[in-house]
Amino acid sequence: MTGKALSMIYGYDPRTGQAVGDPLPEATTADVSAAVTAAAAAGAGWRASSAAERASVLEAVADALLARVDDLWQVADRETALGEVRLRGEVARTAGQFRLFAKVIRDGGYLDAVIDHAAAPAQPDVRRMKRALPGVVAVFAASNFPFAFSVAGGDTASALAAGCPVVVKAHPGHPRTSEMVASVVQAALPDPTLLGLVHGMQAGADLVQHPLVVAAGFTGSISGGRAVQGLIDARETPIPFFGELGSVNPVVVLPSAVSSEVASGFAASLTLGVGQFCTNPGLVFVPEGFEKVIGEAVEGTTGGPMLNERIRDGYAGGLDRLGSLRLLAEGKAGDGEWTVTPKVFTTPLDSFASEMAEECFGPAAIVVTYNDISSLSAVIGRLQGSLTATIHGTEPSEAAEVADALSRIAGRLIWNGWPTGVAVCWAMHHGGPWPASTAPAHTSVGATAIDRWLTPTAYQDWPEELLPEELRDANPLTIPRRVDGAFQR
Amino acid sequence: MTGKALSMIYGYDPRTGQAVGDPLPEATTADVSAAVTAAAAAGAGWRASSAAERASVLEAVADALLARVDDLWQVADRETALGEVRLRGEVARTAGQFRLFAKVIRDGGYLDAVIDHAAAPAQPDVRRMKRALPGVVAVFAASNFPFAFSVAGGDTASALAAGCPVVVKAHPGHPRTSEMVASVVQAALPDPTLLGLVHGMQAGADLVQHPLVVAAGFTGSISGGRAVQGLIDARETPIPFFGELGSVNPVVVLPSAVSSEVASGFAASLTLGVGQFCTNPGLVFVPEGFEKVIGEAVEGTTGGPMLNERIRDGYAGGLDRLGSLRLLAEGKAGDGEWTVTPKVFTTPLDSFASEMAEECFGPAAIVVTYNDISSLSAVIGRLQGSLTATIHGTEPSEAAEVADALSRIAGRLIWNGWPTGVAVCWAMHHGGPWPASTAPAHTSVGATAIDRWLTPTAYQDWPEELLPEELRDANPLTIPRRVDGAFQR
Repeated sequence: MTGKALSMIYGYDPRTGQAVGDPLPEATTADVSAAVTAAAAAGAGWRASSAAERASVLEAVADALLARVDDLWQVADRETALGEVRLRGEVARTAGQFRLFAKVIRDGGYLDAVIDHAAAPAQPDVRRMKRALPGVVAVFAASNFPFAFSVAGGDTASALAAGCPVVVKAHPGHPRTSEMVASVVQAALPDPTLLGLVHGMQAGADLVQHPLVVAAGFTGSISGGRAVQGLIDARETPIPFFGELGSVNPVVVLPSAVSSEVASGFAASLTLGVGQFCTNPGLVFVPEGFEKVIGEAVEGTTGGPMLNERIRDGYAGGLDRLGSLRLLAEGKAGDGEWTVTPKVFTTPLDSFASEMAEECFGPAAIVVTYNDISSLSAVIGRLQGSLTATIHGTEPSEAAEVADALSRIAGRLIWNGWPTGVAVCWAMHHGGPWPASTAPAHTSVGATAIDRWLTPTAYQDWPEELLPEELRDANPLTIPRRVDGAFQR
Repeated sequence: MTGKALSMIYGYDPRTGQAVGDPLPEATTADVSAAVTAAAAAGAGWRASSAAERASVLEAVADALLARVDDLWQVADRETALGEVRLRGEVARTAGQFRLFAKVIRDGGYLDAVIDHAAAPAQPDVRRMKRALPGVVAVFAASNFPFAFSVAGGDTASALAAGCPVVVKAHPGHPRTSEMVASVVQAALPDPTLLGLVHGMQAGADLVQHPLVVAAGFTGSISGGRAVQGLIDARETPIPFFGELGSVNPVVVLPSAVSSEVASGFAASLTLGVGQFCTNPGLVFVPEGFEKVIGEAVEGTTGGPMLNERIRDGYAGGLDRLGSLRLLAEGKAGDGEWTVTPKVFTTPLDSFASEMAEECFGPAAIVVTYNDISSLSAVIGRLQGSLTATIHGTEPSEAAEVADALSRIAGRLIWNGWPTGVAVCWAMHHGGPWPASTAPAHTSVGATAIDRWLTPTAYQDWPEELLPEELRDANPLTIPRRVDGAFQR
């Protein structure tokens, strides 16, 4: 104890703006160090455990989360106002992520195991596989998914699956939810200190600069991500930083796709979760004239309370920025202390500048009208990176040029769908060029999210008895491997 | 032209210290921009080309290099003094790298193609594969391998294989070799501007900060790597940096392995190429008493000229640092203006501090003597990261604890071999924890070196005719893929 009074973290109800329950203390530097040190100690055994052992634990975590869903959604609803249906669904998604990673590590393909037997004249026997990074993974929880991108979110599930212990810096928007989730997960782990939880901004800084931390995952704003990157840059030993930051998620509606369904689909995607999705469609290119239909659809929407006061203020600031454009339409204000109103702005393509398309987190978008499809690609080419890009069309051939342009600026391309909603599956990629991600080659959703916490080791002429089972000739775990150049199952 | 006189780059003969041939001008900022812009323009077609087309070009490059080996080795020998046998072998290795990457891209496994078909209730069709980063790769050539880690080295070969154009910042130690290699490669490319070459320190800074550059590969010193990282950190848009920096490559000789062959093997590895290998064994732990045998072996070695004056001076500085230890033995001085003498220093384990084991580039090492195997792991655990770690032993069971400790600090583990010599194969990993690499999950040698220049794209409900062939249901290119969770060939 330094004698200094501890700062406290309060949760707030977005519907009333009032504090919820007792506050939680911010972690001191000593608290953070204790959490990381304990996680590292527990991590030695976890890293050495078999994939089968870890998979069973991940499934136990999934079961534990589902068993407590009745309590979990209520605690989260008080702190986020996201509602029962969404929050129950999100707990199921969170459990599903643990189950997917159990499958991934049992399968073993994630190890990228390769064997090259010795060959004349001078090629030694070389075998390689990926292994967990030797240390603790730091996770910065997001505000907008209190389960799926928070304490027990995809970063934590994938890191535990890889064999890494985790210390999470809780998001201040849902401190009590964070505590409850941590305790549910910890009870299902062989050692509860494999998952640490710390509160407070300084705790996040201490965490990411701790020498035993070997990588960091982050979901949040560009400014927040830049701040964490700066802290990492100042480390003596650099570590990889996997930050998912801002994204405007452009949508192109081709002339052939103009319909009232597309307009209502857009309005629904824009306002889902009060627009608080990193995949929210913030920029839509439509044939001139169709903006009126879009506007009418948006007029039929209703806002709601945002997650917290800071995010509500950020939305207001974003609207000010967009105010230089013509207001096309607005929805109805919802209820609640921190409620906001959906708004769409419009500009013709030749007045649009890519700098206008900065993310405005919340239910706001720019509707850019165009006359000529062939003029879109150059404009798209100047956009910043996004997590997603979407085309609505009926004729793939008319979309080819636009598709090519979008494929350079986004990590996921969607046809006749909406970007909100990210399937948790083997093929998903949830990343994209800066500022969508600080590490565009990696994803924070889907099976390959585990790759962030792995690093290869090569074994040259290594004795069979010291080799991991995954690399022994007999392949006792029957994992997919490349042997002497050819894939084998 | 700014009117400012251009700075010139001279090559020098390490045997005489005299300049070789005419100097080459340093690239101006405008020159660098022109090279990058031209490479980016040529890169659009290259990126869109099929793997089969690119593979044929890579093989043509390999043929072209081999066809010019008689000229290439002589130009390089004047600038590096590495000798005919080594340099002919290195040209063959360099050509072999292009051939390996031709195989890798024809195989298609490097794309990590995954298909998840749509499934009830709400899972869309999602397909993912890796694609070339959309821009130019910057490569910083190394001094010590004028072919294999320089203009046409593994970074360039893997980036071209991926579908990226390349601009190389030449190493000032072999400017004329760099020019000749570039012209040989360029003549074999469909567009010579796919490979740019620039000279000069400022050119390197301009290169890595150019907006069209999307990633950088680097082989060199820790201070050089930190400088490039700093330039990248200052970019508006961050890019991945794959730097292979310093490595001490610890070797543990177990009591069972003590033999004159191990001593002579160590001395040969230490002095290979005048110790100018990033995998040079700079730290060896031996049973007490065996250091005398090691010392006798080193006394039988002979030094030679180092690559350039700066490296020779760096070696002298490293010897000063090591001078606090007891000089165990030295070899004979070789001939030539910049010649150096192999030296080994010794200390008992209980006087050894991990800070002593800082890389001294050249034929110098610390021989640490121990009494008790069980005391090694804790000391090894405090070492900085290395590219390799080696054990000499006859009983794998006695090596288990040491092996585990070494596996945390090195990317490649070697049994009864020597770290100098890196096989170019599917399983190789040439990387390791900082400072061995700035990106320990990646390798600069072997098939997976291509992964550094790739980034995934996911396609959701994407029309068949817009999908890359690699992701179409019929698998027309017959590449390995994971379909609905299962690997298929």
